[in-house]
Amino acid sequence: MVLVNQAIAEFRRVLTDKYVQVDAASLEPYGWCTIPLERSISAVLLPESVEQIVEIVQIANSHQVSLYPISTGRNWGYGSALPVRNDNVIVDLGRMNRIIEVHSDLAYAVVEPGVTQGQLYAYLREKKISLSLNPTGAGPNCSILGNALERGFGIGPNGDHFQAQCGMEVVLADGEVLRTGFGHYAGAKATYLYKWGLGPYLDGIFTQSNFGIVTKIGVWLMPTPEAFEVCYITCNSEHQLGPLIEGVRKLIASNTFQGPMNLLHRKRALIMLDRYPWDAMANQTPLDETLVADLASQKKIGMWNGVGAICGSTSQVRAAKQTIRKILRDKADRITFLSDRKLQILRRFPRASGLLLKMNMSEVLKALEGSFGMLKGIPSQMALPLAYWRNRANPSLESEINPAKDRCGLMWFAPVIPMTLEDVSAFRNIIDPIFREYRFEVCITLTAINGRCFDATIPLLYDRTEPEEVRRAQACYDTLVRACRLHGYIPYRLGIQSMLEETTTQDVFWRVVQKLKSALDPNGILAPGRYAP
Amino acid sequence: MVLVNQAIAEFRRVLTDKYVQVDAASLEPYGWCTIPLERSISAVLLPESVEQIVEIVQIANSHQVSLYPISTGRNWGYGSALPVRNDNVIVDLGRMNRIIEVHSDLAYAVVEPGVTQGQLYAYLREKKISLSLNPTGAGPNCSILGNALERGFGIGPNGDHFQAQCGMEVVLADGEVLRTGFGHYAGAKATYLYKWGLGPYLDGIFTQSNFGIVTKIGVWLMPTPEAFEVCYITCNSEHQLGPLIEGVRKLIASNTFQGPMNLLHRKRALIMLDRYPWDAMANQTPLDETLVADLASQKKIGMWNGVGAICGSTSQVRAAKQTIRKILRDKADRITFLSDRKLQILRRFPRASGLLLKMNMSEVLKALEGSFGMLKGIPSQMALPLAYWRNRANPSLESEINPAKDRCGLMWFAPVIPMTLEDVSAFRNIIDPIFREYRFEVCITLTAINGRCFDATIPLLYDRTEPEEVRRAQACYDTLVRACRLHGYIPYRLGIQSMLEETTTQDVFWRVVQKLKSALDPNGILAPGRYAP
Repeated sequence: MVLVNQAIAEFRRVLTDKYVQVDAASLEPYGWCTIPLERSISAVLLPESVEQIVEIVQIANSHQVSLYPISTGRNWGYGSALPVRNDNVIVDLGRMNRIIEVHSDLAYAVVEPGVTQGQLYAYLREKKISLSLNPTGAGPNCSILGNALERGFGIGPNGDHFQAQCGMEVVLADGEVLRTGFGHYAGAKATYLYKWGLGPYLDGIFTQSNFGIVTKIGVWLMPTPEAFEVCYITCNSEHQLGPLIEGVRKLIASNTFQGPMNLLHRKRALIMLDRYPWDAMANQTPLDETLVADLASQKKIGMWNGVGAICGSTSQVRAAKQTIRKILRDKADRITFLSDRKLQILRRFPRASGLLLKMNMSEVLKALEGSFGMLKGIPSQMALPLAYWRNRANPSLESEINPAKDRCGLMWFAPVIPMTLEDVSAFRNIIDPIFREYRFEVCITLTAINGRCFDATIPLLYDRTEPEEVRRAQACYDTLVRACRLHGYIPYRLGIQSMLEETTTQDVFWRVVQKLKSALDPNGILAPGRYAP
Repeated sequence: MVLVNQAIAEFRRVLTDKYVQVDAASLEPYGWCTIPLERSISAVLLPESVEQIVEIVQIANSHQVSLYPISTGRNWGYGSALPVRNDNVIVDLGRMNRIIEVHSDLAYAVVEPGVTQGQLYAYLREKKISLSLNPTGAGPNCSILGNALERGFGIGPNGDHFQAQCGMEVVLADGEVLRTGFGHYAGAKATYLYKWGLGPYLDGIFTQSNFGIVTKIGVWLMPTPEAFEVCYITCNSEHQLGPLIEGVRKLIASNTFQGPMNLLHRKRALIMLDRYPWDAMANQTPLDETLVADLASQKKIGMWNGVGAICGSTSQVRAAKQTIRKILRDKADRITFLSDRKLQILRRFPRASGLLLKMNMSEVLKALEGSFGMLKGIPSQMALPLAYWRNRANPSLESEINPAKDRCGLMWFAPVIPMTLEDVSAFRNIIDPIFREYRFEVCITLTAINGRCFDATIPLLYDRTEPEEVRRAQACYDTLVRACRLHGYIPYRLGIQSMLEETTTQDVFWRVVQKLKSALDPNGILAPGRYAP
């Protein structure tokens, strides 16, 4: 503690008092988390430059202080801004929010950690640059860099955010500033254009790790295509899932969908549109399947609901639509394509289109506009309300939805499943009884991250204010992770509550990770425990 | 030397005498190289299993012997099988040539280092599996794993071979066996389906490096599409290059070409079809531009010649062709599409089609069939004869073309150039005078490895039997690398002759590489000097 105090005095010298926060009120927001965890946080530092970060790591080394860097701390359901261990000094990089460069012809941006999805979107619009980003569902205030380092994803073009990252600047624990790819050669011309550089490809070791503080990345953007449509697929029965999976695999193999696409189970669609019907359920959990069917039918939600982007020239989009119709014709109940023009018509004539399509257009429009916009690159909060599913407090959703502040109960569980019915069924047969036993809803989305596997993202939603439910949620989560690991379904990403158990040094892999960590950060000052034994 | 002898005795115990070679005749082929270098090689080991490799690294550690692993040693123009330094023991992994698994639905193969392109192609055909690989130009006997680790590429789907690699098994210097991605979790289901795994993504550090001996990789293959055509683009003037580059950028951004595509300069096309006309040039070098123009015109080669694959459903391929025609209409002199059916007709009626197309069909057919086949996934030797361009000995090209054995003079220079006319011109303005000064031909291919940059692959071709020309070639190569580095055009891959100069520890990046190396291989037994300071 004496050492921490000495370090803090030195941090103040570098950052001034204003940007070294130790009072409870300032620290409080960093403790908000949708996972039932609490951490004692020693201080928060708010640097504004690489030079300051270099000084910070040097001070931390000399006083053996643990630093926990965050970009914007909106890692909802995986830990938000919360350190993995106690007594860390959070390094909040939110003030470093410069968009360093946008190249309109070569379609990339270079951003600092604090640059948010909403900020880049606004920048591109304001400067009338015909490029779009691929947002994740974490909302407009989520960091682009942070999500890429966590290897998060969106759907549509450039949807795998680490794949779309090219070129990094990293402050290492010893204060050296590393530039990856070609970036370390003075005047290199292709730093943000060619991912691998020359020699060992290092970027990967700075993702889902605690090896350095990444202060800059290049991000690939999509040039606005001549034509863009979103494809919505509805299957009303579970029996259609097998053929649907096979169809999707074929369509991705043939590049019909541009980037990842989603298959949402009806319960997942439901929780994005509604709250837990505590009254109708007489306060019982989990949600009754008959009620699920009723609600889904009211809202015209299918059993499985596909959504993906198609783009290219006008004739290519026309051909893609033909191909989708041909391949999914006998597999889906409804295939709908939405373009900007069609959306305008729906907006202008909601009553007429509602009657025509036999839908309640105000509800449908809201959902359509959100998903269409996200696929077109408009960051939105549409995926955040699901965190409030079992939140009884009915908080007024503020202009920025903050599920952690609102004490929502959300833990993401996101294993990778081979793209076959056999595997998806085996996986569901493992998790369904566990969710039932612990009385939570299985709200599954299968994201076809490539043509070979799904990222199954499943929110474990619970009432954070009920201690008994909290304990049940924790036990459910742990049981899920272990059972799925035992059957070979491994998560693509971890919440901070799993990092210790999932990184055992019994495993060669994590021993190697430990060796690399020691080589780069011998005192272990950076994010101890984060994706590390 | 005493230590080496002791080690060799122990190697014999593990491998038997037969697979530990020390006699000059056995070592000779490993010394063949198209780069003017010679190395003393201590011995060659030929293990057949991971277990043997584990014992080999343990022996090497205890005797401080340097090991130099190769897959099939066909790294033409970058060093072939030749170690970077003297007195290494080559570990030839060619006997480990099992195709462990091919999954026809999920479209991947798992291969050992000795599995060649030709072998996997034959396997897929024999088993009637509707998948194709993406070959590199190094010929049917080139290792798939070796090329992926060097981050080589082909054109067409899955053309970036490191990008198409998923899951690794690596024997580390201390004898531990590391499985990357999800592979280290027992029974993991998505090891070969999802690249990044969980925690730090490590595969990258085992490419273009000396951090481990990779003994297995997963490789993504392409499911046979409904329709497949190859697009050939001809531009007869240098003035068309700018618009052509812009068109290609648009076409790749819209996913019209499936995977990388090539723009070949006429001199590059020429050297693939012909030998240096020593007589017509009265033994002078470099080749006269008037003669180049004559030869190109005889062979109907354009100034710039594009080739790329389009595939998908029949309607998608039709739309892609429309899009290519629309975008390149006013930029190219000729756009031709070749399908299996069209190729059959040309084969059946060569005279009629020759008259119709005003071409010498026997020449054209040979070139077309080769490139069409490569893009369809048929490994071929078609790109190898270029190595013989200045080879006066006129060797009979054997059933396996081996440019190193035939003492061809070839050094690849392959910098990455942003996909703009400005950069391509700036780059050519640097290299053209250097090639002219040293009297060699600039035979450039621009491979659009993605929609943002070209890998410019340029063979420096020289007569390996003329000491003066050899010295000139070396000086030319060094001058090229330095001049281009100075202007920010960095190679994507190095020949062994450049590894020392290009990996200086003045540079933070290479210091970090050195730290990681020491962490994994403290005695430095693995491939000393390979992509390392």
